[in-house]
Formats: sequence, C-alpha cells, structure tokens
Amino acid sequence: MRLHFDEVKSTLSQVLMAHGCAQEQCDEVAYEMARNSLEGIYTHGINRFARLVRNIDEGIVKPGMMPVRIGGFGAIENYDGGLGLGITNARICMARAMELACVHGIGLVALRNTNHWLRAATYGYQACDGGMAAMCFTNTIPNMPTWGATDSRIGNNPLVFAFPRKQGHVVVDMAMSQFSYGALELARLENRQMPVDAGFDMQGRLTRDPDQVIRSQRILPTGYWKGAALSFVLDVFAGCLSLGNTVAGVGRLEGDEHGVSQVFIAIDYQKIVPADQAETILNNAVEDLLSSTPSRKGERIVYTGQKTDEIRKENLEKGIPVDEGIWAQIKALA
Amino acid sequence: MRLHFDEVKSTLSQVLMAHGCAQEQCDEVAYEMARNSLEGIYTHGINRFARLVRNIDEGIVKPGMMPVRIGGFGAIENYDGGLGLGITNARICMARAMELACVHGIGLVALRNTNHWLRAATYGYQACDGGMAAMCFTNTIPNMPTWGATDSRIGNNPLVFAFPRKQGHVVVDMAMSQFSYGALELARLENRQMPVDAGFDMQGRLTRDPDQVIRSQRILPTGYWKGAALSFVLDVFAGCLSLGNTVAGVGRLEGDEHGVSQVFIAIDYQKIVPADQAETILNNAVEDLLSSTPSRKGERIVYTGQKTDEIRKENLEKGIPVDEGIWAQIKALA
Repeated sequence: MRLHFDEVKSTLSQVLMAHGCAQEQCDEVAYEMARNSLEGIYTHGINRFARLVRNIDEGIVKPGMMPVRIGGFGAIENYDGGLGLGITNARICMARAMELACVHGIGLVALRNTNHWLRAATYGYQACDGGMAAMCFTNTIPNMPTWGATDSRIGNNPLVFAFPRKQGHVVVDMAMSQFSYGALELARLENRQMPVDAGFDMQGRLTRDPDQVIRSQRILPTGYWKGAALSFVLDVFAGCLSLGNTVAGVGRLEGDEHGVSQVFIAIDYQKIVPADQAETILNNAVEDLLSSTPSRKGERIVYTGQKTDEIRKENLEKGIPVDEGIWAQIKALA
Repeated sequence: MRLHFDEVKSTLSQVLMAHGCAQEQCDEVAYEMARNSLEGIYTHGINRFARLVRNIDEGIVKPGMMPVRIGGFGAIENYDGGLGLGITNARICMARAMELACVHGIGLVALRNTNHWLRAATYGYQACDGGMAAMCFTNTIPNMPTWGATDSRIGNNPLVFAFPRKQGHVVVDMAMSQFSYGALELARLENRQMPVDAGFDMQGRLTRDPDQVIRSQRILPTGYWKGAALSFVLDVFAGCLSLGNTVAGVGRLEGDEHGVSQVFIAIDYQKIVPADQAETILNNAVEDLLSSTPSRKGERIVYTGQKTDEIRKENLEKGIPVDEGIWAQIKALA
C-alpha cells in the first residue's frame, strides 16, 4: 500500500509520544524517518522504526538526554550525547557545526555516546538546506572484517560529503561495506546474486552469492582494502575527536548498537566564494557528467543525489510504499 | 641497484636547480620525491621525476610562482597556485591550514590553478608531524568513466585522512580508481591478472585482465558506483571552494595534466582533546584491529600506514631500489 507522507509522519510522531519523547523530538524524528522512506531509503525509515521504539523501551535510547559540551576551542567542539535520540543529537551537532561555520567559515563538532543517526545523508541535507557544504561520518558496531581477516573488527562507518545546489544538492552517502546485510538478505530471499563481489564464501573466495556471504559473515569493504582502510581511519577520527568509543568499544557494549561516535563538519563557503560562481562551477560539472556516453542503450547516467530527488517527487505524488505488516506493527505501538 | 636516500635527494635537487628552481624549492621537492621512493611509492618518486622536469621545461609547471590569496574568512581561505610546483604549493597550503587550525582549531585552504602534488599522503604526514589530524584531496584530469558510462569524465581524485600517532601515523591515501593505469601496465608486462575486478572489457563485462581494461580505457571506480560518486563530489568541493577547474576544466587544458584544484583541512585536535587520551584511544583501536584473525595462514593484518613505515626503515638501511635506466636519464638532466 502507499501512504501519504503526512500520515506516516503523524503516526510515527504519535508512537514516539506514547514512548516518552517530547513533542519537539517526536516531530523531528518522525519527520526525518518518514522522509527517509519518502526518498527511497526504506531501510532507514519506516522499516526501522519499530526497532527504534524497542531501543527506547529497552533504555538504550534515552529521549530525555541532550548533547552536553565537553570541550571547545574556536571552530571545534566536542559533546557527549548521553545516549539521546540519534537523529536529534546528530541534528543538534550539525546545527552547531553550522553556527561555528557562520562565525569561523568552518565548524567541526565531534559527538560521543550517541545513538544510530539512521540515514547519514540527513545531516548533509541539513547543511545544504542552510547553504553550507558538509562532511560527516559515524562509527558503528564491528560488522565487517578488515582486509585479510575473517572476524569483524571494523564498522561500515557511513561517510557523507554534501554540496548545496539550487536544482538539487550533490550528496554522497556511502557505507564502507559494498552491501549491507539487509541488502544481502533481500537478495537471498529473492534468489538473486549481487551485481558485483559482495564478500567471501566459507572457503575464502570472493563471491556474489548473498547466501554464502551471510554464512561466512565476511561482507566486503567497498573497494576491498581501500574501504577497510578508510573505515578504520574514520573510526579513529570519530573516537579520538569525541573522546568516545571506537568500533571496538561499541562492540563491547551489551545489547543493540549504541554509544557510537560521530563527526560533523560544516563549511560556510559563501563567505569566500560568491554563491552564483560556485553554482555555475557546480552546474557545469553536473552537466559534463550527465553528458557521459552510457555503456548500454537505456543506461542512465546520474549524479549522486539525483535519484533521491526523483523518488521523493514520485512518492510525494503517489504516496510512500509501505509494507502492510510493518505498518500494522507500528500502529500497534501507539 | 640501491641508492642511499641522501644521494637520491641531492641528485634530484641538482637537476631541479639546473631547470630554474630556487634553492629552497629544489631541496623541498627533491626531499619529498626521494622520500616517496624511500617509502615505497616509486610511481610518485624517482620514477616520475623526469616527467616533472619535462613539465617545468614545457612551462606547464612554473617554479617561480607561489600561491596568492584570493579570499579568506576566519578559518577558511582560498588561493591561486599560479601553476607553481605542485609539491611546494600543496605544502604551503597545508602549512597555512595548520596555522589557521592553530588559531581556530580547524583550518581549510582551497587551492586552484596548481600542479600535480605527486603523493597525496605527503600532506597528511605534514600535518601529523605537526601534531594535527588532516584531510586533503585533489582533482585530476578526466581518467575514469563514471558508473554506467564508457567515456572518462571523472578523475581518480586521491583522498587522504591522516591522524598522528607516536608509534606511526594512521594515514589512508586512496585514489578513486581501484587501480591506476600504471599498475595495470605493470601487470600486463608481467603477464599477471589483477587480484580483483579492475575495469571493463570491450564487451562491457567486469574483468581482472589488465590488457582488456587498457584497451577499453574503462578503469573501475573503487567500490564501483560508490567511488564514482565520491570522486564527483570531491571534484565539486575542490572546484567550488577554490573557484578553480573541476575535472572537466582540467581536461580541456592542452598538454600534460595541470591547473588542478585541491583542498587541505587541518584539525588541531589537541586544543580540545588531551593528546595522551587520544593516543590511548588510537593505540587501543590499532591493537584491536591487529588482533584480527587472518583469513589464511601467514596473512598479515596491518593498519593503514604501517607498511609505509616498514618500507622506509628497510630502504633507509639497504638503500632505495632504483631502475638504472631511469637513474641514468635523471643524471643526464642535471
């Protein structure tokens, strides 16, 4: 079935209210999670909502807590998230990075002891909507072996780079694994192979077979050794700048993933670059990219962020595709 | 043959002197290029030196030029490199980012109209040696098709994240292509397949065969669509923040690659994080990573940057491996 964005948002908000969140937090978290589904990121929208509510009920996510400043110097600050709502904490920290950028041209906020921020791109869009470029990243539980290893000791640590553009922001939101376990499980259910190498089989050979990868628990870092290295250094940045958990520390906490560390950087580039000149450079780059020759007839070339805008438009018109069972489960939580 | 680091450095310096570089620039560029070979990055050290000299003689690289400030606000500034020496320009800009970081906690410098900076990690190590964390990236000529395309319109745009550590800095230096054309050509010469997918063959199928990829000119973005997206957004950041060329613009310039755009970010994290606490977090993360279970007997697990330190040690003791033909060519340039 398809549901209107407003209906999804208000239902999610009611459920959060029933589980102890304040009005403002209910609205914010419900808006962002409904928006994730609206923009096609179903895994981090409606489909993950019941898990967030369970985490609140378990006490892993503490809606009453807000980020508390640990330290700061000029344009850099760090905060303790007190295990508050991941989306709220992250939005507060990106907003603070933007305030710092407004004063200093650039701002960096590191956040420890926070919770899953759901969709990484959210905070890139937040900066772009305020006319700023941004980078942000988070660490996670250990869910991937490093290169040459069989046991999971690095995270898939999503990384975002975002640059504002009137005709649609340019945003990359990439996890450090080539595929998530969610994507592998879906493919296995549908009896599909992955389009490229997805991990290793039990014999240690690269494979596209999702079932083999799920069995071996050896998902593939994106770019093989490269993604493994980048994942590790993002974890080091997040842990050290926030004085918080690295992936290993997150893995030692009992229960569902919590206590992660994140970094938010906002760049108020319009302080040194006329907005129209940047827009022209950016539009020319997009135009050049889109003029690429497709490898197959009918293949579409897109810039990163383009599909999001298209799916949003379609789902705003037709409604958000929602699984009836999942929706019934959410309604029951109210 | 193997040559001592000091001999390599002084020979390179003499050649640069003979081609119109000032003493200080000769020493700096010779040191960094000798160091690249010393640390095992032969493609960006001695082996590329003759090309740099040719670029100077052609007038593409202008040793007399230094970065000139275009604009600035607080912790962010942009510069025009005047097509000066790539290494010198980049080191000046990272040094300036570090000065800004010293005052503001973080500093960002964007640089346009500069030349190939040789090894990207150089500027990460520069920051680490000054006790700061860093990020930097550059754009390049168009040398890779974006995802789904056959013609090269994105760059391999190397990206660096670096965090200082007493027992060896943690540095990732990754190009956005899975392999360079140099690596493919070497493998073809040695009749080797690449260890993982390296690009597409003439029929548009993924292949590990270097010869097929060189023929199709379709090298693979690292992480497939992910590296393509990240490459594009790095290009957007570099071009827009510096008001300089994006990859498309670099591609329109005649002759060898020049006129590229770069971004340098330094973080003086010790302003908000006690150095010993960061060091402990980092050492624990390294220790946890290195305790991974190897996938095969004898497989070594390393952190990113570790091998560099080991190769440096070996080449300092035994001398730098140098191709006699290449060395004779360099000596002839003096």
